[in-house]
Amino acid sequence: MADRDVQFQKMAIVGVGLIGGSLAMVCRQKGLAKQIVGYGRRLENLKKAVKLGVIDRFFQDLHETVKGADLIVLATPVGRLEALAREMASAVSREAVVMDVGSVKGDLVARLEEVLPNSSRFVGTHPIAGKEKTGVEAASATLFSGALCILTPTERTDPSALESVKAVWEAAGARLVLMDAARHDQILAAVSHLPHLVAYALVNTVLETRVQGQEVRSFSGGGFRDFTRIAASSPEMWRDICLLNKDPLLGMIEAYEKTLARLKELIRQGNGKGLEMEFERAKEVREREGEWTAS
Amino acid sequence: MADRDVQFQKMAIVGVGLIGGSLAMVCRQKGLAKQIVGYGRRLENLKKAVKLGVIDRFFQDLHETVKGADLIVLATPVGRLEALAREMASAVSREAVVMDVGSVKGDLVARLEEVLPNSSRFVGTHPIAGKEKTGVEAASATLFSGALCILTPTERTDPSALESVKAVWEAAGARLVLMDAARHDQILAAVSHLPHLVAYALVNTVLETRVQGQEVRSFSGGGFRDFTRIAASSPEMWRDICLLNKDPLLGMIEAYEKTLARLKELIRQGNGKGLEMEFERAKEVREREGEWTAS
Repeated sequence: MADRDVQFQKMAIVGVGLIGGSLAMVCRQKGLAKQIVGYGRRLENLKKAVKLGVIDRFFQDLHETVKGADLIVLATPVGRLEALAREMASAVSREAVVMDVGSVKGDLVARLEEVLPNSSRFVGTHPIAGKEKTGVEAASATLFSGALCILTPTERTDPSALESVKAVWEAAGARLVLMDAARHDQILAAVSHLPHLVAYALVNTVLETRVQGQEVRSFSGGGFRDFTRIAASSPEMWRDICLLNKDPLLGMIEAYEKTLARLKELIRQGNGKGLEMEFERAKEVREREGEWTAS
Repeated sequence: MADRDVQFQKMAIVGVGLIGGSLAMVCRQKGLAKQIVGYGRRLENLKKAVKLGVIDRFFQDLHETVKGADLIVLATPVGRLEALAREMASAVSREAVVMDVGSVKGDLVARLEEVLPNSSRFVGTHPIAGKEKTGVEAASATLFSGALCILTPTERTDPSALESVKAVWEAAGARLVLMDAARHDQILAAVSHLPHLVAYALVNTVLETRVQGQEVRSFSGGGFRDFTRIAASSPEMWRDICLLNKDPLLGMIEAYEKTLARLKELIRQGNGKGLEMEFERAKEVREREGEWTAS
């Protein structure tokens, strides 16, 4: 039996990719859901999800998917969430618990609350987990084990819906942190969205660089390669994140530009002492990482 | 017997760390050197190098170290190379092959050629290899296996000295590329020095960020952690690289600032199509990496 005696009759996964698929696998393994159904854009992917046992069946009709579901997980790229919620709204039961798993919360949570038939049954969630590979083939019931999952209930949220969502994420082995959606977006702009943007900018700068007329990217052993891994993330997902978390991200880019300008000025001045102090500070973070990994 | 029948009677390693120690291990394993001696700042480290069998003995006197050596490897942080070369010059045999392994070449190669007693026997080299760990404990005879090693001979370089240095790096399993020192510095500014600086700036920006008065670094799962690894590199080494490769690096920082400003403007405009195109381009690099890793 599941933790806290939560069991759903019909769990609907809208977007059966890495995150949605992994959560389905958790719920099946822990007996949290009797039936698990999926919906998605790519038929091939949905067939694979059935074959892998991640979902019991799929629908190509969104209303069919969510009808009668008592747990609905929205796991598409964040840019599609509002339109999908609007499209499914008339078929969603007022009792259904609805959660998203998107990397942006703020305004999006507010808009989903507006669009869904019963805002009190919606809970925004964001598991900070992922891997380089995407798609249901990469899904795993252990993906969230030990990972941080941020929940952003609002004043409208029904405590019993929140408890259900907590039970799902606890079954996944995630460490839960509750905070308001705006704070989530500011924190993630700093620790996730800015790093990705910085990596995209670095990779494209190196791609555009010519030395004596030749490309330089073949000399990729010296630091560049670490960035190409981060910059290999889904363009669609990161486009949506940039657009939906615009203001916090722009604020972080400006803070970053200032730090970079400071380092540039130290180099220009030939200020070795100043540079070494900056680099020492950055290095200490790594050494102290064990101390402050959120737990 | 060694490749090309090169064998040195006395190999002197000035700076017995990760790179110098690994090269010593290669030369011992391949029978390239009869005796290997070391010199360094930290007595503890030199004792460890002897205990690990990396060097046969050490000296705390630089002249003793290089006297009678027919191969001298300069493997300290690049900022100390010129002063050390000046200090050792009167004890260096005119026949000795001298090589450095520094990450910056340009002006430094010119200055070392001036300072050493016989500029034709000096060859600048830069193995693009390393790991997060530093020091002789991390040294390994396989560190350079498959790695790129850039050699920067000049018009002064004696072909037989160049052949000896090539033999050493080929024994290490490195893939050799010859180019002029200025080109080396421009390429490395792009693929190595800029990425490190970008990572240092990112880590320090995140460290300085407060959301609702609280630090954000505990939420480090979402991209930030990849940067802390790069930013954990030796502050002294990176200080020296920034100072010695100042102009190419400043040029790359400015190119990077332009790319970042372009991305910022796309975000500000809400230009999803433009962002996706930028991100697609960066992602393709990773996918095509196999094609263009220098070989």
